[in-house]
Amino acid sequence: MKLTILKDHLIEAIGHVSKAISSRTTIPILTGIKIDATASGVTLTASDTDISIQSFTPIENDSIKIIDLFKSGSVVLPAKFFVEIIRKLPSQTIEIEVKDHFQTTIRSGSSEIQIMGLDPEEYPLLPQIEENKMIRIPSDLLKTMIRQTSFAVSTNESTPILTGVLWHISGTKLKFIACDRHRLASREITIEHDVSQNLQNIVISGRTLNELSKILPDQNSLIDIVISDNQVLFKIHSILFYSRILDGTYPDTSKLIPQSYQTEMLVPTKQLADAIDRAYLLSREDKSNIVKMIMREDQTIEISSSSSELGKVTEQINLQRFSGELLRISFNSKYMLDALKVLDSEHIHIGFTGAMQPIIIKPEESSSLLQLILPYRTTN
Amino acid sequence: MKLTILKDHLIEAIGHVSKAISSRTTIPILTGIKIDATASGVTLTASDTDISIQSFTPIENDSIKIIDLFKSGSVVLPAKFFVEIIRKLPSQTIEIEVKDHFQTTIRSGSSEIQIMGLDPEEYPLLPQIEENKMIRIPSDLLKTMIRQTSFAVSTNESTPILTGVLWHISGTKLKFIACDRHRLASREITIEHDVSQNLQNIVISGRTLNELSKILPDQNSLIDIVISDNQVLFKIHSILFYSRILDGTYPDTSKLIPQSYQTEMLVPTKQLADAIDRAYLLSREDKSNIVKMIMREDQTIEISSSSSELGKVTEQINLQRFSGELLRISFNSKYMLDALKVLDSEHIHIGFTGAMQPIIIKPEESSSLLQLILPYRTTN
Repeated sequence: MKLTILKDHLIEAIGHVSKAISSRTTIPILTGIKIDATASGVTLTASDTDISIQSFTPIENDSIKIIDLFKSGSVVLPAKFFVEIIRKLPSQTIEIEVKDHFQTTIRSGSSEIQIMGLDPEEYPLLPQIEENKMIRIPSDLLKTMIRQTSFAVSTNESTPILTGVLWHISGTKLKFIACDRHRLASREITIEHDVSQNLQNIVISGRTLNELSKILPDQNSLIDIVISDNQVLFKIHSILFYSRILDGTYPDTSKLIPQSYQTEMLVPTKQLADAIDRAYLLSREDKSNIVKMIMREDQTIEISSSSSELGKVTEQINLQRFSGELLRISFNSKYMLDALKVLDSEHIHIGFTGAMQPIIIKPEESSSLLQLILPYRTTN
Repeated sequence: MKLTILKDHLIEAIGHVSKAISSRTTIPILTGIKIDATASGVTLTASDTDISIQSFTPIENDSIKIIDLFKSGSVVLPAKFFVEIIRKLPSQTIEIEVKDHFQTTIRSGSSEIQIMGLDPEEYPLLPQIEENKMIRIPSDLLKTMIRQTSFAVSTNESTPILTGVLWHISGTKLKFIACDRHRLASREITIEHDVSQNLQNIVISGRTLNELSKILPDQNSLIDIVISDNQVLFKIHSILFYSRILDGTYPDTSKLIPQSYQTEMLVPTKQLADAIDRAYLLSREDKSNIVKMIMREDQTIEISSSSSELGKVTEQINLQRFSGELLRISFNSKYMLDALKVLDSEHIHIGFTGAMQPIIIKPEESSSLLQLILPYRTTN
């Protein structure tokens, strides 16, 4: 293999695939980035077995010559050093030459770097995915769905299925659900075609979706999502992003969500979030994060927290609307802040069915987004 | 004590003193910020015993009323929580009221915070410093001197004196020296008056000077520096910054610096720094940081490093000037990068007296700044 490539384009491609490089991998070849040079361009591949990312750079783009190919070929180079040194090379033109035993020389300006490459034959093959099972979602909408749900996945590896986000497919409806036993986040959208005959529900790791989100452009361009038995492939322009589908059956969470409320309120979102944020500061000191909400006759709520060592925070908020029974309810302030952060609505609707029942939080004018928090059992 | 104070001014004062709050202190009262309210204004004090900082906020400034004082008094409030909650209060006006047993109430908008305060009588008194021993340095120049030397102090606590920067006073010359046995950084300036009759050399912790540097404004306004037997006081507008003087005698480093050179070169600074930076990337993998410099007949130098696992980096640099014997010399690339970073000169002069003798680096046209690095003894 021998070629020259423009530095900025190589750095961009490295930036995409490097999200799949794990420093903790037990498979030595996966600490490397695979480079394949062919007559059409250069493909970089990185993988940590959960995620695999491929980025393609064409020989030329908009009649700008990006790559000069002298000899096609492949090599695997140690990712960490390769990524760092490429960024720091002095010239815009980078020459990469691979000789016997994958001995690789990188030249740029007055710099010459010798790297011991690895055999690309040892690099695992990417999954073969049939193209017939596919859904399409606008990139920015997919990003929003991930942001509104993935924070609620479980971090407890003892129940792996809950570390993922459920993609629940039913007719033309696609719903993301994340749940860690203490809270639940869900977001539903309508997709173009009814794919439910063709597609089953799948579960994708929350961590993986967050990595995907960093690559997704903030545009409404459609992303092709190809689904196979155990892999999903996201096609983002010149990038292929492969993710493993989590094994197992996602628990049925539909019964958690009440159909009617005993108490309902409409609250200004920012004011509630700021008040809970201040109460959280104190609750955090006791490591409990417990914050109390007391509803009053005069259409106000009191948010408070206390720490035996430090003191007490008390906040008053005027409600926009209130109906039903006056409750005293305690909850995890961190969970409430996480939920409020993604609601994107000036006012929010909160529904209660009792002091020990799930709290349901929704934007004022939408039923496609729902956040659920289980309250704490407290003594007063 | 009872007063109201404008939030932005309180946050600014907190920002200054919070640099002296240590989370690791063994003296409970020092986890707090002391607040003193008098008819002239509010003084905040924080201290970790090495550093003490006091910030004064007047009742009014430029005819803007900052503080409304209803009752003077003092209290010590837990720093971490106080700092965080003040930043997050909803209204620009903050009321602070201290009642019996230092029970403190903070009110702002619809928030009310109760904090258990501590007795200000328990707070250690700041050192009394006589004003007669003083030097004055422009703020931006003092900042530069700290930046050019403090990185070279030792981090090894077993020789505490070397964790400090020596202030060597001789006539109207003030020289900062930092040395960790492997390298030395020094910067000399001329001060207004001959103070050597009055003042002895002092040593101030490098960490303390770095904290001071964050408070020093980037202006050439003069900073009064008052020196007593065991404390230095820096007066920065409304801020008083006290630092302990380190005990012990700083070693005589003057003999380390050669008076003449066997080999001398003039090198473009950025090109050398970039080349060493790339070589450093590889040398770091072997944890040695060793980089080799080979001088050639054709007025070039080769910078190289190698790692048995990864490969080799080789760099060529054309010298501006060269005279003397051709040497091969190895050194710690990290130390060289640290030194090059603070030289602020397009070309630098490097002097050698042999492959095993100190390397001396200076800006092209200045003798007030000097960096010294001891070479490595290597086998080839």
